[in-house]
Amino acid sequence: MERSLGEIAESLDLTLIGDPEIRITGLASLPDALPGQLSFLFNTAYRKQLLETGASAVVLKEEDAAVAPCAVLISPQPRLTWAKIAGLFDPVPMPERVIHEDATVADQVKIGADVSIGPRAVVEKGAVIEQDCIIGAGCYVGQNVHIGKGSRLYANVSIHHDVVIGQRAIIHSGAVLGADGFGFEFDGSRGVLEKIPQIYAVVLGDDVEIGAGTTIDRGALNHTSLGNGVKLDNQVQVGHGTRIGDHTVISGCTAIAGSTKIGSYCLIGGAVGIIDNLEIADQVEITAMTLVSHSITEKGRYSSGTGLLPSRIWKRSIVGFSKLDEILKRLRRLETRD
Amino acid sequence: MERSLGEIAESLDLTLIGDPEIRITGLASLPDALPGQLSFLFNTAYRKQLLETGASAVVLKEEDAAVAPCAVLISPQPRLTWAKIAGLFDPVPMPERVIHEDATVADQVKIGADVSIGPRAVVEKGAVIEQDCIIGAGCYVGQNVHIGKGSRLYANVSIHHDVVIGQRAIIHSGAVLGADGFGFEFDGSRGVLEKIPQIYAVVLGDDVEIGAGTTIDRGALNHTSLGNGVKLDNQVQVGHGTRIGDHTVISGCTAIAGSTKIGSYCLIGGAVGIIDNLEIADQVEITAMTLVSHSITEKGRYSSGTGLLPSRIWKRSIVGFSKLDEILKRLRRLETRD
Amino acid sequence: MERSLGEIAESLDLTLIGDPEIRITGLASLPDALPGQLSFLFNTAYRKQLLETGASAVVLKEEDAAVAPCAVLISPQPRLTWAKIAGLFDPVPMPERVIHEDATVADQVKIGADVSIGPRAVVEKGAVIEQDCIIGAGCYVGQNVHIGKGSRLYANVSIHHDVVIGQRAIIHSGAVLGADGFGFEFDGSRGVLEKIPQIYAVVLGDDVEIGAGTTIDRGALNHTSLGNGVKLDNQVQVGHGTRIGDHTVISGCTAIAGSTKIGSYCLIGGAVGIIDNLEIADQVEITAMTLVSHSITEKGRYSSGTGLLPSRIWKRSIVGFSKLDEILKRLRRLETRD
Repeated sequence: MERSLGEIAESLDLTLIGDPEIRITGLASLPDALPGQLSFLFNTAYRKQLLETGASAVVLKEEDAAVAPCAVLISPQPRLTWAKIAGLFDPVPMPERVIHEDATVADQVKIGADVSIGPRAVVEKGAVIEQDCIIGAGCYVGQNVHIGKGSRLYANVSIHHDVVIGQRAIIHSGAVLGADGFGFEFDGSRGVLEKIPQIYAVVLGDDVEIGAGTTIDRGALNHTSLGNGVKLDNQVQVGHGTRIGDHTVISGCTAIAGSTKIGSYCLIGGAVGIIDNLEIADQVEITAMTLVSHSITEKGRYSSGTGLLPSRIWKRSIVGFSKLDEILKRLRRLETRD
Repeated sequence: MERSLGEIAESLDLTLIGDPEIRITGLASLPDALPGQLSFLFNTAYRKQLLETGASAVVLKEEDAAVAPCAVLISPQPRLTWAKIAGLFDPVPMPERVIHEDATVADQVKIGADVSIGPRAVVEKGAVIEQDCIIGAGCYVGQNVHIGKGSRLYANVSIHHDVVIGQRAIIHSGAVLGADGFGFEFDGSRGVLEKIPQIYAVVLGDDVEIGAGTTIDRGALNHTSLGNGVKLDNQVQVGHGTRIGDHTVISGCTAIAGSTKIGSYCLIGGAVGIIDNLEIADQVEITAMTLVSHSITEKGRYSSGTGLLPSRIWKRSIVGFSKLDEILKRLRRLETRD
Repeated sequence: MERSLGEIAESLDLTLIGDPEIRITGLASLPDALPGQLSFLFNTAYRKQLLETGASAVVLKEEDAAVAPCAVLISPQPRLTWAKIAGLFDPVPMPERVIHEDATVADQVKIGADVSIGPRAVVEKGAVIEQDCIIGAGCYVGQNVHIGKGSRLYANVSIHHDVVIGQRAIIHSGAVLGADGFGFEFDGSRGVLEKIPQIYAVVLGDDVEIGAGTTIDRGALNHTSLGNGVKLDNQVQVGHGTRIGDHTVISGCTAIAGSTKIGSYCLIGGAVGIIDNLEIADQVEITAMTLVSHSITEKGRYSSGTGLLPSRIWKRSIVGFSKLDEILKRLRRLETRD
């Protein structure tokens, strides 16, 4: 995985200022980079890091080129260039396109060309795995699951019956798609909770990525669905019947309850909570650890919570918080005193 | 899985107004339902949806029957009826009651009648699996684990040594019962954390459901325990030694620290945090994303956090939050000014 | 696993007041303990529990010895003594040091002496597993993974390619190390998110413990790293490129975004959120469910959020919260009125 700077410039159609023979062995951030490595200046504000970098070459915008202490590759969008260059140095293993002898594949399964099924994976009857898919070691693919072409499941993923996955999905270890939604009805006469069977499934569009340990429940009255290009980070929870629009991005540990409808091109921060039966418009941004307790009808940025404080100040503020209603009344009284 | 409306009415003892020969092929919500599907009106407030539904029949309360544009099944409790009808249309696969040839079952294991053990499951010595249990593909059942009759573990569940599971449990993929509780003691003389062995186990009552990716740790000085009928959603964390009373329901991503005692018939929202060594009374309701930082001795509804705001307003409010102690002092000064 | 009190006293060099022949069969908390069990008084404030305990013996500090109703073992640090005694009563199974016949181990793997590899585990080529390691059932050990000596992976752990684990690690079920970090760059010309390959790995120091369901992502421009003695509880999320210093302890369900640097000897509570690209000093303590939204340069204790309130009071407070900027303005107006 070593390439010349000239090769990289040519393959991505970038202007190179410097010696095309320089050997690049990997990527690193500006402060960490060593000779032989390529780095990136994403933002002019970090020019100081550029001046001190040990990198052999840096990808940057034209306006930063003059100050670089090394070879440069000029890109109008260094982050997008990064996404493309990193693929040249990615050591992710590509398994052989075979069904491993230690996999358990039922009869009545349709498997396309050039599919890899890893050791200890289990594929149940009726499943369809289209061409070029990679099913990792220890994965469970339930009855009648449909996985679109070019998708990859890493080790120990669980996909339950009737779930539909589009093309080019990437699903990370420990993810669970199609477990039962959380639905019970209290039967007062017996004092117990009656389970509501979750008879629908989960349907994913194309180009979806699902993080490690993320869970997406099957629906009770409609499929839980994710549009094209949706990206979920690790340990996200998506409740039953929830629908997420195209190209929405959701960071780690966010919990979304059931029957909520989230728009397209939303950016939802980490550890956010979204309650059930809401509607969230397109292009809504939610900052980290916000509780979304009502629908959002207009695009924009939304937040909840308090700022970070030293605990001794915070303790006094939470006393004040509990008295806010009283504070408003006392203010009104003062304002009308004379 | 097609049934006539007459059959459904009879099996659940409901009054039918309409043609008993109508074929029902599935369930859907009022706005989504198509001809051939059965739907539900849970709340008179949604009568407008009833008027526009494409469903062939709707389950509803007597007082809503007159306005229905289709056949109706009358139920005093439509949600409870839903729970029962959905079972008739549930495609969840029922595996053969055999030990799969690709399972690894140790000697000295007791397995009851009509048990199914899936491919790639591992059952360690001393385990007892009572009759009618289903152990999914890739599950791990540790030494001396006891699983009560009629329980079902979906794929890739991990149950560690000495854990006891009652009857009719449902445990979803990725759940981990009986990993070590999180206990360390700082050894100042060496500057390191000494691990406290977690020598107790986890004990579950009957009719417990555990969501995907949920973790319940084993105890250090007593068993971590869940009463009968407890339902935990996905990605819930239960710390070591915590005890949860009968029929308590806990939504997704809630984190409960160790040695806390939660009452019966509590309703705990999603993404709630509950610190260690608390006591929470029976019938306590906690709203989503609340931090429970002290014991709750009276039933009722409790909350923490702030409301959702556009970020530009929120930023000003958190400045005010940090000054709440000062605000109270300034108010007092004004009030006593003359 | 029965021992005499005399044996216990001797093995830990504790002063015994009472009959050394007393048989101890297990440990329990003061209120739960029965005859035959040993208990602990960690804090003089709980002396009342000591007076009423059914334990046959109690570990306590010298100053509490006189009031004990039973035999005592005197320790200057009862919690540290507990950590050591509990090991004597720990029933955790120790598997045979063999490669199970149902494991799938690739060629070109280096396995040290006295290693146990459980049934259904998968070890890919290039992996190095040093002596005395235990790899649980169903684990996945990816290409070129290095696991230091004496480490234990419980069942169904996933470790991806090139991850490095130090000596004496304990990794609980469902943990995922080395899944892709969450990195995308929006390609405006096509309206889609371009994936940024995550080409670095995860590197763990010695004596690290990782909880069940915890996920640690691989880095994009540097390794994600945990220092020596770091302890992560269950369902923690560590983003790509984040670095955690030695002996830092992080409680359950905490979400840490990418490229953040956390110091040594920090204590981070449960369900905390930490955003990306921050620096947190050594010895910082963060209370449960705090959002860390900016860097912390000084050691100390930090918090965010509001206190727990009955929901009817809380609803009024959140109205006040949204008006805090206005409250400050009204106060100022009053103060300057005359």
